[in-house]
Amino acid sequence: MAGAKLGERFVLTSYGESHGRAVGAVVEGCPPGLPIKLEEIQSELDLRRPGQSKVTSARSELDRVEILSGIFNDRTTGTPIGMLVWNKDVDSRPYEELGHKPRPGHADLPAWIKYGGFNDPRGGGYFSARLTSTFVMGGVIARKLLRTLFNTKIVSYVTEIGGIRAKEVSLDVAERDRYSNEVRCPDPNAAKQMVEAILHARREGDSVGGIIECVVQNLPAGLGEPIFSSIDSDMSRALFSIPAVKGVEFGAGFKVANLRGSENNDQYEYQDGLVISTSNNSGGILGGLTTGMPLTTRIAFKPPSSIARPQRSVNLLLKKDEELIVQGRHDPCVLPRAVPVVDSVVALILADHAIRAGSVPPVLKEMK
Amino acid sequence: MAGAKLGERFVLTSYGESHGRAVGAVVEGCPPGLPIKLEEIQSELDLRRPGQSKVTSARSELDRVEILSGIFNDRTTGTPIGMLVWNKDVDSRPYEELGHKPRPGHADLPAWIKYGGFNDPRGGGYFSARLTSTFVMGGVIARKLLRTLFNTKIVSYVTEIGGIRAKEVSLDVAERDRYSNEVRCPDPNAAKQMVEAILHARREGDSVGGIIECVVQNLPAGLGEPIFSSIDSDMSRALFSIPAVKGVEFGAGFKVANLRGSENNDQYEYQDGLVISTSNNSGGILGGLTTGMPLTTRIAFKPPSSIARPQRSVNLLLKKDEELIVQGRHDPCVLPRAVPVVDSVVALILADHAIRAGSVPPVLKEMK
Amino acid sequence: MAGAKLGERFVLTSYGESHGRAVGAVVEGCPPGLPIKLEEIQSELDLRRPGQSKVTSARSELDRVEILSGIFNDRTTGTPIGMLVWNKDVDSRPYEELGHKPRPGHADLPAWIKYGGFNDPRGGGYFSARLTSTFVMGGVIARKLLRTLFNTKIVSYVTEIGGIRAKEVSLDVAERDRYSNEVRCPDPNAAKQMVEAILHARREGDSVGGIIECVVQNLPAGLGEPIFSSIDSDMSRALFSIPAVKGVEFGAGFKVANLRGSENNDQYEYQDGLVISTSNNSGGILGGLTTGMPLTTRIAFKPPSSIARPQRSVNLLLKKDEELIVQGRHDPCVLPRAVPVVDSVVALILADHAIRAGSVPPVLKEMK
Amino acid sequence: MAGAKLGERFVLTSYGESHGRAVGAVVEGCPPGLPIKLEEIQSELDLRRPGQSKVTSARSELDRVEILSGIFNDRTTGTPIGMLVWNKDVDSRPYEELGHKPRPGHADLPAWIKYGGFNDPRGGGYFSARLTSTFVMGGVIARKLLRTLFNTKIVSYVTEIGGIRAKEVSLDVAERDRYSNEVRCPDPNAAKQMVEAILHARREGDSVGGIIECVVQNLPAGLGEPIFSSIDSDMSRALFSIPAVKGVEFGAGFKVANLRGSENNDQYEYQDGLVISTSNNSGGILGGLTTGMPLTTRIAFKPPSSIARPQRSVNLLLKKDEELIVQGRHDPCVLPRAVPVVDSVVALILADHAIRAGSVPPVLKEMK
Repeated sequence: MAGAKLGERFVLTSYGESHGRAVGAVVEGCPPGLPIKLEEIQSELDLRRPGQSKVTSARSELDRVEILSGIFNDRTTGTPIGMLVWNKDVDSRPYEELGHKPRPGHADLPAWIKYGGFNDPRGGGYFSARLTSTFVMGGVIARKLLRTLFNTKIVSYVTEIGGIRAKEVSLDVAERDRYSNEVRCPDPNAAKQMVEAILHARREGDSVGGIIECVVQNLPAGLGEPIFSSIDSDMSRALFSIPAVKGVEFGAGFKVANLRGSENNDQYEYQDGLVISTSNNSGGILGGLTTGMPLTTRIAFKPPSSIARPQRSVNLLLKKDEELIVQGRHDPCVLPRAVPVVDSVVALILADHAIRAGSVPPVLKEMK
Repeated sequence: MAGAKLGERFVLTSYGESHGRAVGAVVEGCPPGLPIKLEEIQSELDLRRPGQSKVTSARSELDRVEILSGIFNDRTTGTPIGMLVWNKDVDSRPYEELGHKPRPGHADLPAWIKYGGFNDPRGGGYFSARLTSTFVMGGVIARKLLRTLFNTKIVSYVTEIGGIRAKEVSLDVAERDRYSNEVRCPDPNAAKQMVEAILHARREGDSVGGIIECVVQNLPAGLGEPIFSSIDSDMSRALFSIPAVKGVEFGAGFKVANLRGSENNDQYEYQDGLVISTSNNSGGILGGLTTGMPLTTRIAFKPPSSIARPQRSVNLLLKKDEELIVQGRHDPCVLPRAVPVVDSVVALILADHAIRAGSVPPVLKEMK
Repeated sequence: MAGAKLGERFVLTSYGESHGRAVGAVVEGCPPGLPIKLEEIQSELDLRRPGQSKVTSARSELDRVEILSGIFNDRTTGTPIGMLVWNKDVDSRPYEELGHKPRPGHADLPAWIKYGGFNDPRGGGYFSARLTSTFVMGGVIARKLLRTLFNTKIVSYVTEIGGIRAKEVSLDVAERDRYSNEVRCPDPNAAKQMVEAILHARREGDSVGGIIECVVQNLPAGLGEPIFSSIDSDMSRALFSIPAVKGVEFGAGFKVANLRGSENNDQYEYQDGLVISTSNNSGGILGGLTTGMPLTTRIAFKPPSSIARPQRSVNLLLKKDEELIVQGRHDPCVLPRAVPVVDSVVALILADHAIRAGSVPPVLKEMK
Repeated sequence: MAGAKLGERFVLTSYGESHGRAVGAVVEGCPPGLPIKLEEIQSELDLRRPGQSKVTSARSELDRVEILSGIFNDRTTGTPIGMLVWNKDVDSRPYEELGHKPRPGHADLPAWIKYGGFNDPRGGGYFSARLTSTFVMGGVIARKLLRTLFNTKIVSYVTEIGGIRAKEVSLDVAERDRYSNEVRCPDPNAAKQMVEAILHARREGDSVGGIIECVVQNLPAGLGEPIFSSIDSDMSRALFSIPAVKGVEFGAGFKVANLRGSENNDQYEYQDGLVISTSNNSGGILGGLTTGMPLTTRIAFKPPSSIARPQRSVNLLLKKDEELIVQGRHDPCVLPRAVPVVDSVVALILADHAIRAGSVPPVLKEMK
């Protein structure tokens, strides 16, 4: 099994089940000497936790992270960093029949087949979006590493929810305003409508999808290992590991299907002694390598599968069709809580590739 | 470096440079006993080679594959399969200045930075689409394995080129007709217009992009290893390794942003004793596992970056702006030749995951 | 970093530092359905813990294992198994100066160089033998898997300590008697002398080394992946990961240097319809594959480096020679506590290769 | 399958079968800019080839290496280096019955079981020592990298054959004289006796084993990734991948079983401003990390299994005992030809770890 591991040199291993004892992360490969405080991890986790606002699930998980190893005197030691969050406020009763009555849109049915019924079905088990808190634990460290070394900025934000599209804003505005509203959309007018769309869907026992955009600035050129560990390859792998993601594009993305080469090619010129491109349809990636221009990616999230409306399912034990009412407290839209998760997986891949490219020193500071 | 390797248990390693001696593949992990003939590999390579038709490059590479190891008496031995194609008809003169005058849209600039000018720039070197012939070498074996064991059908075809969209056809029609025209589009009317669009762009010194769709039938349920080696994760990684790909989606893809949960969820029911879903917005993937429904993916290809028109570039040695005319013989559209490549990488990932899931016997047949 | 991970398909990830919060293991790849109880892990850990007898360290760590994920209703779920032991009875005072005054025989000096002084030096940090408790956590599950499927017996025992050699005993006797004395040597007379040798060395402020032998019965033939993941390759890798190991041999081992081919070759014959070899100089391994004969390996452990006598060291800050007195409570001989550790790493490698060889079903039992 | 791959960042992939078309290597991860000429690889391969002297096999394989990719203008490009040697002078007739009549001491029997009879049995197929020529192809590049960067010297030589032990010589003498005789032993008197011992054994239709020692000087301290990729772990893995190896030890090796801690610990002192140890029982490895002292390892090779004397085997088709006479031309002792192979695998592991430790710059020289 290689599924629990992300990265080659900066490696995240994730474990845990939604209603088990804890969810945890082991991060290997961060060079020694990086300053990191518990609070930095906690505050990013707080952006992901449920129960934050009226547009998220009513569950209230405090998600207090504990550091078990790999950080000593508030610096990384260079050895594996163990972290975990205990599971609390767990109400497993609604999930009792899930083992054999698969929820449409969830992993229940293929998991039942793959694991022969032995997997922990409560709350989705290992398939729960709760596991993305472990992405954030690792992502905070990766972002700190990139910011410390290259002043890298990773800024994800919501551009579309339930059919409402935000207008384009500058990256500075996006960075400044993305957390100024419940939906993490830097366009305040669109944000209001998105909140409405979410609440409207919830009232109707339904849910909505949308799109998150991520822009990365200040990244070394030449990251990525062709052919199969190109930067877009590895980043898409990580992004599709986030539950509910159904599409990923870089730069002009699907629009390239309608562009001509002369429109799509980003032309070069010197500006202040540096080579830049006058457009960025490539999204900062050519030949699977970072170009030094901003890396841009857009990620499509489906509407949450857990909706209050009755759905058609089957009883796998009785082998017959049965109506299903999904119980429990669920998010009517995953995007607001997914923003720090996107930041995190993008950071994890970039930190891994910065190390792989030899851009990261083996020790981060002079001897104390 | 892990870039040359795709897969964990069915592993393709690719080497070679566009204008070097040869491009080659090493395939490890195919169980012993699979019948495979040289001609099966050759005939699929023929579908990818240039010079096939009026819509492809005028280069005429015969691409005769040689098998070096791992196949004995027309069956796999269980040990690594070495294969290669010698490079011929190579005209490296047009590439002499590429080292320091990067072509817009190509990897030249970030490769210059990453490799410090030591990489072989001729024909794009390791970044050349020529390397995708190694994907096909491995892909043929993977497809044969899947077809032999599960009767799996992997059918890729063009659905859009240069703004021309094909109408939807049944999978049977797609499989039957996709190779009946130069553009590998199973809708004959659209195909004609696509040919026109390509030739029109070429006449204007330009190029066009498009979309390939791939549908996979008869696949075991439960393939994929959550969280980070989910089937969509690993497949997107492989698809983004194909040069020119800028977007990948599964099932309803980016459309999910505008769907409600009640629309998007695929409802279950029993049909002839089997659980099926009455729609397939998931594209046959839930929680990163195959569901047993057809796996569907759509891939956006950009217009080829090598166009005849003058472009703005820079001279990295003189550190000044310079106009660039890309020389050489190039495809005005990569999609027709990319169809067998998409089939191949999809097969490689699925074969790898079928082995990882324990669905493939360690030896394929009784002792002879 | 790949150092924290052992195995390809049955994967142990180990984290923790000797005097940090906890040491932990994540085990991925165990198929779902394997029955396993907390007590099974605990009882094996108890065989490794310090303070058990007069020949081990006086520290008294109770090492209570907690299961965090991956086991549900006393069966494996098929998803990652998180486990940990909290660190208690930690006295870090003796280690204060270790950061810059390296103990002879320990990792202190190269670790100081590698980690730039940022690693946690207390108790050896990540280099502590305490980390081997995580090997046992994973090893118990691996052994249970092998025993359940193949009735595999893995029996390690001490054959030499401080120059005292045990006489050879049958495997049945070794299995029955190895835990009947403090030194885990199935020859009771030798065991008594070994205890004496250890206590004598301790009284002199010194320590002793020795040899552990491991024999594995009932193993499928054909395990191992040539060339570089041959079974001896992977097993030696794991064995040299145990602190203090300086030599590993299989079968006749170093004695082969003095044997002729006619003496060393194990001849074949049929016995009760099965092919066996009439000797086992190969130690059950040919061409890096298990033969089905018992796998035998011998492992040399050095005397513990922490001795009470004054030693010559250096002060890395003052850059001058300094005498060193190692403080703390230490084992005068690691072998007794290393026996379950050897069992564990052998089991981990064999479980991994059994899965890699396709000998392990993807689900371990019929649906409950 | 992960068996064909050695290394994480400097990666060798080996393919080929003894009597197939070719044996080949793909080397990934060498930084761009390393000067390397075909002749450097060829001359090292010549040290390994058969038919060199009266103590080796009478086969005469010229083993002309061809470079297929990754080297351009006599420098590495940074992309995968493909190399191969065509198989010639192959006489497959003696191997016809091998498929079902296993040779004692060879992989035939477990390979028959593992591959279900589909593997290529001629000349041992993938298990042939012929594959070690691919280790040398990669090893030459690894050694050049280490020598260029650190002035690292890797010197392997024979210390024992057929019971004849060489006297100890200085490393300078070993380096100067090791290739001055057929057996690659720097003690000329012992070398003469070893030649006699080999020829004597051959005359009696038999074979002899022995020991190779390897010493590495000028190595950065801190290489190795604890716990499971410690430098001794990874090196032993590689050494046991060489056919015929049955034992590996580092530093004092198995002798530590009889040493006390006070004898075995290497004490530190400053010498000319550098910390050194006054003895080297550790073999330059502490806690799995290189210390900067010379790395020393000893490797036991068994006598070749192919001997002229009749042996007892079985007929797997007829299921009965049968006498076997091994045909073909074989080495009566593998050690002379194994010396460059040991050099090579040691170099491969050290180059990999030098890159992993961040000790190797991403590009090897300024732009040409």
